[in-house]
Amino acid sequence: MFESASLSHRVEKTAYRREEPKLRQSLLDAQYDLLRSGKFATLILIAGVEGAGKGETVNLLSEWMDPRHIEVSGFGLPSDEESERPRLWRYWRALPPKGKVGIFFGAWHTQPIVDRVQGRIDAARFEQEMTEILRLERMLVDEGVLLLKFWFHLSKPQQKKRLRQLEKDPVTAWRVTKTDWNLYKHYDDFTAVCEPFVRKTSTGEAPWLVVAGADERYRSLTVGRTLLAALRERLDEQPVDRLPDRNPPLLPAADKLNVLRALQLDQPLAKAAYSRQLEELSGRLNRLFRDPRMKEMAVVAVFEGNDAAGKGGAIRRVTRAIDARGYQTVSVAAPSEEERAQPYLWRFWRHVPRRGQLLIFDRSWYGRVLVERVEGFCKEPDWMRAYSEINDFEQQLARHRVLVVKFWLAISKEEQYRRFKERESIAFKRFKITDEDWRNRKKWDQYEKAVCDMVDRTSTSVAPWTLVEANNKYYARIKVLRTLVEAIEGALAGFEPAAGVTAGGKPRAKRRK
Amino acid sequence: MFESASLSHRVEKTAYRREEPKLRQSLLDAQYDLLRSGKFATLILIAGVEGAGKGETVNLLSEWMDPRHIEVSGFGLPSDEESERPRLWRYWRALPPKGKVGIFFGAWHTQPIVDRVQGRIDAARFEQEMTEILRLERMLVDEGVLLLKFWFHLSKPQQKKRLRQLEKDPVTAWRVTKTDWNLYKHYDDFTAVCEPFVRKTSTGEAPWLVVAGADERYRSLTVGRTLLAALRERLDEQPVDRLPDRNPPLLPAADKLNVLRALQLDQPLAKAAYSRQLEELSGRLNRLFRDPRMKEMAVVAVFEGNDAAGKGGAIRRVTRAIDARGYQTVSVAAPSEEERAQPYLWRFWRHVPRRGQLLIFDRSWYGRVLVERVEGFCKEPDWMRAYSEINDFEQQLARHRVLVVKFWLAISKEEQYRRFKERESIAFKRFKITDEDWRNRKKWDQYEKAVCDMVDRTSTSVAPWTLVEANNKYYARIKVLRTLVEAIEGALAGFEPAAGVTAGGKPRAKRRK
Repeated sequence: MFESASLSHRVEKTAYRREEPKLRQSLLDAQYDLLRSGKFATLILIAGVEGAGKGETVNLLSEWMDPRHIEVSGFGLPSDEESERPRLWRYWRALPPKGKVGIFFGAWHTQPIVDRVQGRIDAARFEQEMTEILRLERMLVDEGVLLLKFWFHLSKPQQKKRLRQLEKDPVTAWRVTKTDWNLYKHYDDFTAVCEPFVRKTSTGEAPWLVVAGADERYRSLTVGRTLLAALRERLDEQPVDRLPDRNPPLLPAADKLNVLRALQLDQPLAKAAYSRQLEELSGRLNRLFRDPRMKEMAVVAVFEGNDAAGKGGAIRRVTRAIDARGYQTVSVAAPSEEERAQPYLWRFWRHVPRRGQLLIFDRSWYGRVLVERVEGFCKEPDWMRAYSEINDFEQQLARHRVLVVKFWLAISKEEQYRRFKERESIAFKRFKITDEDWRNRKKWDQYEKAVCDMVDRTSTSVAPWTLVEANNKYYARIKVLRTLVEAIEGALAGFEPAAGVTAGGKPRAKRRK
Repeated sequence: MFESASLSHRVEKTAYRREEPKLRQSLLDAQYDLLRSGKFATLILIAGVEGAGKGETVNLLSEWMDPRHIEVSGFGLPSDEESERPRLWRYWRALPPKGKVGIFFGAWHTQPIVDRVQGRIDAARFEQEMTEILRLERMLVDEGVLLLKFWFHLSKPQQKKRLRQLEKDPVTAWRVTKTDWNLYKHYDDFTAVCEPFVRKTSTGEAPWLVVAGADERYRSLTVGRTLLAALRERLDEQPVDRLPDRNPPLLPAADKLNVLRALQLDQPLAKAAYSRQLEELSGRLNRLFRDPRMKEMAVVAVFEGNDAAGKGGAIRRVTRAIDARGYQTVSVAAPSEEERAQPYLWRFWRHVPRRGQLLIFDRSWYGRVLVERVEGFCKEPDWMRAYSEINDFEQQLARHRVLVVKFWLAISKEEQYRRFKERESIAFKRFKITDEDWRNRKKWDQYEKAVCDMVDRTSTSVAPWTLVEANNKYYARIKVLRTLVEAIEGALAGFEPAAGVTAGGKPRAKRRK
């Protein structure tokens, strides 16, 4: 993989001087065209061998282009903030929005490679990391990001020569540290890890671009020209109005049964029993968040459900039980302009909680496969791939000991009608009902299909769905609280998600009334 | 993932009788439309729980449609023929061509799942298998195959009920064996493996379609309708003339140097020394193929090079050394009609040698990234993804102890001109030179770029390229023979590919003259 880059590539000073001003001007033009059009985000990864000019190239690009629209992120050791989140969090946080250029100096590949070379992770774990990188990068490309991955290379003799030259000159000798020679000594170990890495993570849409790093002028021209060509090609491309439909349709219904219709939506629970159980569960929940073991994990609770199913009421019963510093609620509506300029999962990644925290999503990333699917806000291939992207996201959370508990609050069509009418007739409830609610209701069947597909494709051992029979609000609130309490208790015991999905009449979750 | 499919889905007899004839007719129509149009191949994978109706569904589909255009492949224990090839070989062999329907009863997923449940492979190896499956299926979809993956499901109580019912009836009791009850006992073990498997190998373009298997009529209608909808959707789709360009351009040249130009093409070797070395190396090669350890491996030698670079001559010096039963030569020209109806790697997979054999490719799968790229026979996204598909292919070979040795025979433009002219002037050589050769020569620079990209992207630790300086035929033949001999010797010693790539002036391979 490193054949060309091991050659003694070289650009003469005169040729460089002739070329550079033109290249800079063209790059600036492309950058402004990108900014004006806001067509896509450009993400440049800088990776490779030490001493091959990575830092210099980052500086050069910022110098050549307008630095106000480039954001450089260097990823060293994770900060406190970062190490309390899943590993990918800090990269999501730094993603450039559409119209801008982001440069990652080191990225998701750095740690796995170093860990593997130093033997901290085994071959299996390394394979797993590579698979996750493949899935992440494919998602970014599918979301329209122009992803350019530069790998800067020096052959072993080139690296030695460079260190010797720097050492010989008293002015530059300070640049050579023990670490540098140590890295040189382990050159072959790194190559043994990097070669298969570069091979396996080079795909058609996101290949590694291996750059010979020894000669500064060659390296600079190569990176500059590649970036320019990539920007121009994408900027000048005519929009493609239709993608080929590659995914098969999901299962059609052959009978009337589905996971929602299998629910017995009317569940008895009288007010007195409700109040007693509410008090008991609130106490248990409160104590859980004071448990010292809670400092080692976090909880994400997702609330989805029919309009007027009582999500807000159920959420309040949860939050009332917990100290206000211990939780946060995120209400998800239509994405903001800032959010629309990013891959759709970005606005959820940014909220991932720190250790010890409960984060509640009142609606969530599942909008992608619900409202966006039904209303046609995104295309079929996009919501079809979202299922696996969401599963990957939740697996990232789970691996980082973030417990994910997901509720679908289900009411019947008749009960919804009753509640809509009630909301319209009571002045202080009127703000809760809009024309959109009535419009959504007309698409009841389409939403039902979307919910069933969602449960089938995203209820996993890692993050199961709990379907909540919600015609009786009391019952629903207790089931939510109990599921949450038991899931956290289970997680504290062994970090095994304990909330079983309750799909259909015979729920697997323990259902105590 | 199995929520819907665990419900007690059911279709009444009357409803089924009403529906079935219409469905059959529509399926037949779709099948003939597919056959006539030859637009794409349909591949149906049948997987899932024992007793969930897999076999019955396979039979049903063959009954409903025209069995002459459906090929059912059941994959049990591998045959002798099959176990001497890489694991994927038998699936490639059975792929349906465009216009036809193939049904795989069990496929690449079966063995890894069973091996994992029975503890024969560890979690790491299982992850690796899943990654390979993802890459394989994505390649099939990218190649235009309509891939439908059905997973037949029974919940644990459903499976128990089914076994009990069969046992109770004396007429059907024979169907229940000890194995069945044994599988039932390990139901949870299977689920623990299958759930993450189904989750991780469900992608937007190739999702698992989980079918409730308990009720025969429900199951049959569901599969039939899904197949029909998928066929119709794809058949009726308007062709998309342009795909969005997602891949960045490969590196432009910033100087004149590349792996080909770095070669010193004129290498001295006089006839006398040549004859002596040829004799010595032929002997070594011959003895290697009589080594009993050779029965544990196979060799694939790939010859690519400029027109008139002497591939044929070099190949003959190899084959002359070996018993005629020990090798086979495949000359690759434009694909046949049969081959064009398959993914492009199909015609190479079919030739993968048995143990103990040497298979020589005179031109190869690299045509995809050479002639097909330069002549525009395939689109940029297609040859861009081919690099990683080829690397995956060669990795499959290497893992199965098939040594892959790849030669690029390089001559200078002047030397080519001299040889072309010589061929034209000597009557018995005239058949070797065509107008196409002269046409290709006009695209010298484009081919040079394609070759350099190829070496950069496919010279790997698993299957490195050897660049052969070939202006002097004697030198080239000896280098080919020596590289091959040393690679086989290395492989026999420890199955480490020993042939280093020789890129540039300082080849890493041992070059003894």
